[in-house]
Amino acid sequence: MNIVFSDLEGVLVPEIWIGVAEKTGIEDLKLTTRDIPDYNVLMKKRLEICNENNLKIGDIQKVIETIDPFEGAIEFVDWIRENAQFIILSDTFSEFAAPLMKKLKMPTIFCHTLKVDSSGKITDYVLRQDDQKRKAVMAIKGLNFKSAAFGDSYNDISMLKEADAGFFYCPPANIADEYPEFPVTSNYSDLKNYLIKALDI
Amino acid sequence: MNIVFSDLEGVLVPEIWIGVAEKTGIEDLKLTTRDIPDYNVLMKKRLEICNENNLKIGDIQKVIETIDPFEGAIEFVDWIRENAQFIILSDTFSEFAAPLMKKLKMPTIFCHTLKVDSSGKITDYVLRQDDQKRKAVMAIKGLNFKSAAFGDSYNDISMLKEADAGFFYCPPANIADEYPEFPVTSNYSDLKNYLIKALDI
Repeated sequence: MNIVFSDLEGVLVPEIWIGVAEKTGIEDLKLTTRDIPDYNVLMKKRLEICNENNLKIGDIQKVIETIDPFEGAIEFVDWIRENAQFIILSDTFSEFAAPLMKKLKMPTIFCHTLKVDSSGKITDYVLRQDDQKRKAVMAIKGLNFKSAAFGDSYNDISMLKEADAGFFYCPPANIADEYPEFPVTSNYSDLKNYLIKALDI
Repeated sequence: MNIVFSDLEGVLVPEIWIGVAEKTGIEDLKLTTRDIPDYNVLMKKRLEICNENNLKIGDIQKVIETIDPFEGAIEFVDWIRENAQFIILSDTFSEFAAPLMKKLKMPTIFCHTLKVDSSGKITDYVLRQDDQKRKAVMAIKGLNFKSAAFGDSYNDISMLKEADAGFFYCPPANIADEYPEFPVTSNYSDLKNYLIKALDI
């Protein structure tokens, strides 16, 4: 039995925080780990900015509802799900992913969660576990699946390594250069062909 | 993050082999482990009967396409997927499950596979692993999910035990009596209430 693991942001849908920054006009929400390398410091900062701007979870979800998957992503995910099992491994939060999951027809996603108080204010975030993408692939490979994975960034590398076959989809050039062992794809049609070969579909 | 594991046949959809037997009129396909206790002997017999009757994979899938999920099952699965991640753990074969998965809107399913030759004849079956339901729950619990599971039969017991909370759905009376530790439900509304409590939804 075959299983495909996929990253979410940058691969099937745009970067969520960037989308929220653009749609709300709050420039500081465009900060990424390139600006603040420590993820925990960055996340605390993001939540601080949300609270300063009185952005509640409902407001953010409404903004995310206006973000669409990339062109062709819905059909590509449909195709994967007809030919293999499919799990999205993402470092986003389930509360943010929810509107996008509806647009992708509710695939399974393993990610993290937010703490939200009764007024809708985001008070904290809960990472489900460290290095969750690698651990998920390891755990499910142990159930005798043949696996393939694709992603675009540093946090996908351990997942790409752990899967039986790993592919880049639209990665930044420096990351692709650093890991030449993973074939680089830049459209779903090419990625589909790699999956067909890797999983003998 | 919450995850729900579910059995398939007898819980969300009718028993597939019984359905195929009824729709094709081939009475012998109604044999179950109650008639032939050794599963491997039973499966070999079923494939023999299919081949004797010249039933190819495509014919069987067409018959399975006429089987519908139980009343309310589609809406119930929709509800679970809006409130938790959801994986069906079934001892059926992915080729048989496919038409039913479409009707349930393509949830993730971990099951077994068939070997089919180029003419469509089923030549063998491949069990992904022994005790796969328990092993899947164990592996995914290790990824820090809070879990609940429901099923109706002996092959679900290890899954119900391994999950943080386990429930019977319409089990035969003798099985329910043998495992009084699992609450018995007989409609999706009651089962939903148990899931809400168990997972703090």
